[in-house]
Amino acid sequence: MAEATTLKGQPLDRPVLDSMLRRRMFYTPAFEIYGGVAGLYDYGPPGCGLQANIVDLWRKHFVLEEDMLEVDCSVLTPGEVLKTSGHVDKFADWMCKDPKSGEIIRADHFVEEILENRLKGDKEARGVKVEEKQADPKKKKRKAKGGPAAVKLDDAVVQEYEEILAKIDNYNGKELGELIKKHDLKNPDTGVQPSPPIAFNLMFQTAIGPSGHIPGYLRPETAQGQFLNFSKLLEFNQGQMPFASASVGRSYRNEISPRAGLLRVREFLMAEIEHFVDPQGGKKHPRFHEVKDIKLVLLNRETQLAGKTHVEEVSIGEAVANGTVDNETLGYFLARIHLFLEKIGVDQSKIRFRQHMANEMAHYAADCWDAELFTSYGWVECVGCADRSAYDLSVHAKKTGAPLIVREQLPEPIVIEEWQVSLNRKLFGPHFKKDGRAVEAAVEGTGQDQREALAKELSEKGSITIEVAGVGNGKVQIPKELITIERRTRAEHVREYTPNVIEPSFGIGRILYSILEHNFWTRASDGGDEARGVLSFPPTVAPTKVLIVPLSSNEKFRPTCHKLSQKLRKIGISSRIDDSSATIGKRYSRNDELGTPLGITVDFQTIQDGSITLRDRDSTKQVRADEDTIIAAIQSVVDGSKRWRDVEAELPAFEGQEVEVTVR
Amino acid sequence: MAEATTLKGQPLDRPVLDSMLRRRMFYTPAFEIYGGVAGLYDYGPPGCGLQANIVDLWRKHFVLEEDMLEVDCSVLTPGEVLKTSGHVDKFADWMCKDPKSGEIIRADHFVEEILENRLKGDKEARGVKVEEKQADPKKKKRKAKGGPAAVKLDDAVVQEYEEILAKIDNYNGKELGELIKKHDLKNPDTGVQPSPPIAFNLMFQTAIGPSGHIPGYLRPETAQGQFLNFSKLLEFNQGQMPFASASVGRSYRNEISPRAGLLRVREFLMAEIEHFVDPQGGKKHPRFHEVKDIKLVLLNRETQLAGKTHVEEVSIGEAVANGTVDNETLGYFLARIHLFLEKIGVDQSKIRFRQHMANEMAHYAADCWDAELFTSYGWVECVGCADRSAYDLSVHAKKTGAPLIVREQLPEPIVIEEWQVSLNRKLFGPHFKKDGRAVEAAVEGTGQDQREALAKELSEKGSITIEVAGVGNGKVQIPKELITIERRTRAEHVREYTPNVIEPSFGIGRILYSILEHNFWTRASDGGDEARGVLSFPPTVAPTKVLIVPLSSNEKFRPTCHKLSQKLRKIGISSRIDDSSATIGKRYSRNDELGTPLGITVDFQTIQDGSITLRDRDSTKQVRADEDTIIAAIQSVVDGSKRWRDVEAELPAFEGQEVEVTVR
Repeated sequence: MAEATTLKGQPLDRPVLDSMLRRRMFYTPAFEIYGGVAGLYDYGPPGCGLQANIVDLWRKHFVLEEDMLEVDCSVLTPGEVLKTSGHVDKFADWMCKDPKSGEIIRADHFVEEILENRLKGDKEARGVKVEEKQADPKKKKRKAKGGPAAVKLDDAVVQEYEEILAKIDNYNGKELGELIKKHDLKNPDTGVQPSPPIAFNLMFQTAIGPSGHIPGYLRPETAQGQFLNFSKLLEFNQGQMPFASASVGRSYRNEISPRAGLLRVREFLMAEIEHFVDPQGGKKHPRFHEVKDIKLVLLNRETQLAGKTHVEEVSIGEAVANGTVDNETLGYFLARIHLFLEKIGVDQSKIRFRQHMANEMAHYAADCWDAELFTSYGWVECVGCADRSAYDLSVHAKKTGAPLIVREQLPEPIVIEEWQVSLNRKLFGPHFKKDGRAVEAAVEGTGQDQREALAKELSEKGSITIEVAGVGNGKVQIPKELITIERRTRAEHVREYTPNVIEPSFGIGRILYSILEHNFWTRASDGGDEARGVLSFPPTVAPTKVLIVPLSSNEKFRPTCHKLSQKLRKIGISSRIDDSSATIGKRYSRNDELGTPLGITVDFQTIQDGSITLRDRDSTKQVRADEDTIIAAIQSVVDGSKRWRDVEAELPAFEGQEVEVTVR
Repeated sequence: MAEATTLKGQPLDRPVLDSMLRRRMFYTPAFEIYGGVAGLYDYGPPGCGLQANIVDLWRKHFVLEEDMLEVDCSVLTPGEVLKTSGHVDKFADWMCKDPKSGEIIRADHFVEEILENRLKGDKEARGVKVEEKQADPKKKKRKAKGGPAAVKLDDAVVQEYEEILAKIDNYNGKELGELIKKHDLKNPDTGVQPSPPIAFNLMFQTAIGPSGHIPGYLRPETAQGQFLNFSKLLEFNQGQMPFASASVGRSYRNEISPRAGLLRVREFLMAEIEHFVDPQGGKKHPRFHEVKDIKLVLLNRETQLAGKTHVEEVSIGEAVANGTVDNETLGYFLARIHLFLEKIGVDQSKIRFRQHMANEMAHYAADCWDAELFTSYGWVECVGCADRSAYDLSVHAKKTGAPLIVREQLPEPIVIEEWQVSLNRKLFGPHFKKDGRAVEAAVEGTGQDQREALAKELSEKGSITIEVAGVGNGKVQIPKELITIERRTRAEHVREYTPNVIEPSFGIGRILYSILEHNFWTRASDGGDEARGVLSFPPTVAPTKVLIVPLSSNEKFRPTCHKLSQKLRKIGISSRIDDSSATIGKRYSRNDELGTPLGITVDFQTIQDGSITLRDRDSTKQVRADEDTIIAAIQSVVDGSKRWRDVEAELPAFEGQEVEVTVR
């Protein structure tokens, strides 16, 4: 994979972009005057505007388009809820401490990096050219002093290392600790082995209420609040299935060592959809035909297993048909995610959908794909789209007894033929005495296939033997006097089922950062000084749509500027007046850095004949016309009905002020 | 004050409203299937939509209208920041425990209620009619079994109790404990005295990072994040003053015993503005003239001190002129808050602005007014508008050394005449030896008045004596050979000042709840069954603008309904199709409860001639016209350019389907 590039294909110089984003206050480390806290950021006015526009488009694209039920749930969450969901036990990373430096280290990343370094050293020693692996922003790279040592390893050792790396996600803390010992993995910074790994739960904990009796967490995802409200939402939707809920809100993860700017933070905005679907009938989607021809770049599981990153561009219709993507509903959302990313200004050549490996997915998930965006940090997971099956609703229903199910009135009763068991209770109790309950539960717990076999056993042998843990030697014989196993029929009028959940989950901060990189480029300046940054956002996501610049700070221009700004506000277009004393050129550059797509200049001619000029951020071309014509042109560019080239073709060009003269 | 009423003046039956709000999922207790957690709520689809519309209008009314700089800051906040702001030490309530029941009790409320009950009992014993005090939703009322006992008190005791109540906010925990002991205040529920009060900090605490070394809190207000970014925001604003920052986000308070629904919760949405203004020149506001004639209902400090609740309606211009409201900027925001509340559907007869008493305000505040809205819980503080002076910026600057100031280039240098001190360093050092530094610091620390006196002392006595803590007996004599104190002049080219902050702070949840009460009323039903609830939101804040109902679930109506819904979406109007099998009347009632202002009916005539009917939620009147005419009418009602009565006057009336027949 090539290096990251700007919108115009220039090599991306991240420090230049970073410094521009800081200078223009897109975002800034939170609490910076107090020294800051890793993983916490504040958004300044342009970042805040960009975020709001992304969220607004998300709502229109998903929530309004599909009549989703938006909810806004509590961030503070009692421990019991997250215990049930599995987060209290499993939402953890393994963490070691360097006994010398006190540095805290993520165990799996540590093992991975040291072994990779050794393999790299081996290749070097063998004279094999080493290709740089793609940077993974999730991992903290140990800075090996002077790079890996060129030490040749035994072939058997190489194979062992490669096997460890292939299943690195599968080790628990104890196993990671054993690997560190066995292979004597030392922190290159200090030369010592880190301490044995301990589990570090990534949730922020707090206590709710004055007694401190209610342990609580800050939610790690918005999903649980939506699941807990399932029954109310179904009722709100008048019992109709399928439907989706949606939520936009903050979530929290106490990362062990957050870095990589906005990509790995401790507090972040998520936008999540929980689409509830009947698992019967292959999870079809009624609008799948609308998206079936959309082509996606897919990196599937098999390709990854083969250790490759080759991608294929296929229509989602084909991918579902050939089984690459599990079902229509999942496929529908992958296509919709693709369209959304396109709309908000993601570079089309920098999107891929990567399928989760079997060991990456939660054990209940049927399939999971991440929309990854390519940035200077490598491929970054920005949207996850998982089929969570019936897991969440089932565990909460089991824990609380709440019926998180759909009851579907059947048009005609279904006649079900099945193996049924009946016990002769008069004899059964006295026969098993205190073990009666346990034996009965074991009998009731048998499945259809097992019952069929047991029926055969009963007729052939006159008794059955089943396993009952804790009774006798664990096996219990039941004579035919006590039990009947028969095939019977019964009619069912209502079908009850637990819906499956397809969950598209968006990390808004990661998407926002990717859009910044994808829309950034630099323009050589007229004056020959250093290149100037431009953020070519699509007008819909640009924080401000129009810059209004008076030629100078002359009082005469003020009323016109304010009138223009109010007219634009009336038609819902945000503008900003820059009447500072900087040159017009400087003021335009400042706003190119802010990504403002259009600029209006008010000059002396405006006062005379009411005409104004309109400037395009990307081409720096200008046109001139009367106020109403220019405002109509702005509106059409902002609402997307026209592009700048249409405006340029329609209105007279203007060559003018954009020169480096002080106009005071 | 009268009881709470509905929009139509009916007595407000809160349980009826509550049950409707639950049924329609405006909001719901969070984690209800797990038994819920007091003070935590989830918003369902209509509540979520209502909240989004209120926030959207807030942004337009404040942020866009005044070019405020919106920021989005971290909720997780390191302890040091909140230590400096005073929250770690002072953001607490005094809490007691009932040793018998374990109940946790807020100490000040406890003392207040028991004494009020005794005074009530005294009045009863004296045969004086007892007027019910207004309910204050902030206080948990002890349920005195059977009401207060009619026991006559000595006149001196009555006076003592009244004095205690007048200054109840001024007692600290120790003093509250003494009051409980001295007056033998017992919990009526258990008959025992509660334990001595201890301070309970209302912030939720957590630990940031894996080491647990960074103690953190969930912010109790959004303000601190804005203050810490002051210098960056000033730079973003190109150094221009005054300006305002703004932020919408969640804040957290670990209330001791939250009740009263959405009015006292532990997690809530705030919208806060920090307007930074030069304290010099009386805090004028350039747009004050635009609002000066707006009349507000004011309950000032003097009236409250006199123990009255008499309000006066005065123009804000007059209130600032006569000093009731401290300054123009504060007055400007009070008027703007009033206009905002009016716009979003607050009942004009249920707003008042109450000035904080001196002892209610933070010690640094210059003036503070709360916009209170009247509900069935009494008067509820929904917006605070405080002049926080330079307090916050000063304390953070002092703690961190960051220059949170404005440097104003003076058009002409200011010549300052002042007392200056100079030391004869050759002699000073050897004279004081190791104490030199301390003595010098004490000399440098003297103020202008002191220096004038010291100059006199020096010329009269030939030496001065100043206090230097830790040196000798704390007093040090400096002979005239070592020091000169003279009046000299110097020129200053830059003026440095710390801006003052005017802070309008909105509790969105409380405003939302008040709007629900203010817009609720019940309509007698045609069929004579129980009255039906209606929420007459202004169209701008209504969660959904248009309900689309096909006459029946006949397939024929489906394409028309979808086409209408898409047309409306294109012009930015949210709609919802209700094609359930309920009667048209039932479907309209359901949507009256949801506050949907307009309804479209699609019937067989629509299929023939394309005409549709439009129904008004409030009058239930209908008109009929072709699709384009109806859509234009909808647009004008939603954007506020027309009212229903205009539409009714222009278009032909329709008498029709709203009858209780099943139309399947």
